[in-house]
Amino acid sequence: MDKPLKYAVFGAGSWATAIVKMLCENLNEVGWYMRSVYTKEHLLKEQHNPNYLSSVEFHLEQLKLSNDINEIAEYADVLIFVIPSAFIHSELQKLNIDISKKTIVSAVKGIMPETGLLVGEHFHEVYKIPYDNIAVIAGPCHAEEVALERLSYLTISCSDTVKANHIAKNLSSDYIKTKISDDIIGVEYAVMLKNIYAIAAGIAHGLGYGDNFQSVLMSNAIREMKRFIKKMHKMKRNINNSAYLGDLLVTGYSVFSRNRMFGNMIGKGYTVKSAQMEMNMVAEGYYATKSAHLLNEKNKKKTQLPIINAVYDILYENKNPKKVFKKLTDKLD
Amino acid sequence: MDKPLKYAVFGAGSWATAIVKMLCENLNEVGWYMRSVYTKEHLLKEQHNPNYLSSVEFHLEQLKLSNDINEIAEYADVLIFVIPSAFIHSELQKLNIDISKKTIVSAVKGIMPETGLLVGEHFHEVYKIPYDNIAVIAGPCHAEEVALERLSYLTISCSDTVKANHIAKNLSSDYIKTKISDDIIGVEYAVMLKNIYAIAAGIAHGLGYGDNFQSVLMSNAIREMKRFIKKMHKMKRNINNSAYLGDLLVTGYSVFSRNRMFGNMIGKGYTVKSAQMEMNMVAEGYYATKSAHLLNEKNKKKTQLPIINAVYDILYENKNPKKVFKKLTDKLD
Repeated sequence: MDKPLKYAVFGAGSWATAIVKMLCENLNEVGWYMRSVYTKEHLLKEQHNPNYLSSVEFHLEQLKLSNDINEIAEYADVLIFVIPSAFIHSELQKLNIDISKKTIVSAVKGIMPETGLLVGEHFHEVYKIPYDNIAVIAGPCHAEEVALERLSYLTISCSDTVKANHIAKNLSSDYIKTKISDDIIGVEYAVMLKNIYAIAAGIAHGLGYGDNFQSVLMSNAIREMKRFIKKMHKMKRNINNSAYLGDLLVTGYSVFSRNRMFGNMIGKGYTVKSAQMEMNMVAEGYYATKSAHLLNEKNKKKTQLPIINAVYDILYENKNPKKVFKKLTDKLD
Repeated sequence: MDKPLKYAVFGAGSWATAIVKMLCENLNEVGWYMRSVYTKEHLLKEQHNPNYLSSVEFHLEQLKLSNDINEIAEYADVLIFVIPSAFIHSELQKLNIDISKKTIVSAVKGIMPETGLLVGEHFHEVYKIPYDNIAVIAGPCHAEEVALERLSYLTISCSDTVKANHIAKNLSSDYIKTKISDDIIGVEYAVMLKNIYAIAAGIAHGLGYGDNFQSVLMSNAIREMKRFIKKMHKMKRNINNSAYLGDLLVTGYSVFSRNRMFGNMIGKGYTVKSAQMEMNMVAEGYYATKSAHLLNEKNKKKTQLPIINAVYDILYENKNPKKVFKKLTDKLD
């Protein structure tokens, strides 16, 4: 890594915007691909993203903005994808340059709904990227608090320690502390699963369960997450590290979490469709629930996943949330 | 256990009142000792505790009320102590009957400040109660939610499974689920330590740290708690069970927690004394901090306790909370 590596971010949601901000603390230039022409024009005119974290002002000389995914992919050495999992597949189909030598970083908080693959696995299988060149950025980190420069911690996972450290260094600042990990698969599953548990927390809240129950739910959720990840990828990990438990807590306990909000509406009696329309967005955990359920169904020896199964029954089998949660309470301890 | 055992609760705070309510769901009569003559008179006249959970109405024919600790201790087979740790020593000195054959249950959320002993250890050493006759009730459980009959889970720890089950059965109801455990020492330490971490969470909030940091703090707290308890009493336990992690979360995340509130005032610049005066009470975690610190100091090979040490430095060494937490952030990950 002699000459400075060029970084680019793909996506223009709140998390993408937060990551661009972090990189701008360290790099002279950051590539930034966004689909929306309007967002790009607004950024050029007003120096902030019109839709997310609009209080964050960028210096235009630091940004290489484009609506052309190939231009930015060509430009950068380290490609950070921050596109919702529901859209990443269609976005990637626009790519027509060779990215097999690039370093790919996933900050997608979900699984590819089309294939059930983790984003890292997808890049490995479709683009032949070696696992040493794939990294994952995990929280616990609400983008909104990055905008406020409130102290936050990130975990950068990559089997190549040098790369993990390089990425970590470029994300670090006065208000961002980083650590590295080599559990790329476990961390990616954790990032996806926590959204399901946040939906469960929201449903419980919507149904009128209180703080005592929420803490039991979260205590069971981290044990369930541990079982799930262990089954998928056995290695030594401390599930209570920030990238797993911390991320679960910041998502499950925050009233700002969209997944929790979505669950809350379901608990209050909205249908999935009406909740999605009301929120004008799709919560990542909605897809993650189906994927996690399918992954477990495929296993010969199934893992006990009472919380995920309960959320699945409510979201996909049209079961009554009140009844499903009543049954769930007997399976928790 | 042929003839029905008689239960009594000692104390009249919110948690004591909640436990009496739980027992009244199952027993024809519950003994209830309280120091205050006024509280007893009010209960007799108005059927509710004047100071705590006043929405809970009791049936007087179910209560055997007394201001005489010996009368109630004499009456009951199972003695449940729910007196703040700061006062339990002086209350117990009033006892002049032999309680060595009784079953002692601690629902005290702290350690004896005079001796640094867990409440169970104190009964064992001073009153020669065998460990088989000592049990601990742990949450996660805010008393306020018991008053509202919101679903809550309790863990009853006792090395004698029959006794644990008996107590669990008498606390269970539509809104209380119970499980049993044999880790009486670990659970008692957890109950005490969580209050220190709730103070830490409060200090962080008072200093302006956000949700991202809180989740990192809690993720580090459960790992620190695991190290502490393991050092004190080595046995196989899952620290993510509700009695440990769940209880930590309900205390650390709730704005109703008095320990968190106390920490919040300290973080906002109150002195310990002014915070205590303002709250008109002493948070259990205040004493627990000193005890936990002392216990660790006594060890030859000290355990890494960065959070407890930070809280100790602020509460007992008069260190600047902002500076102490700035340093602490470098020790967390």
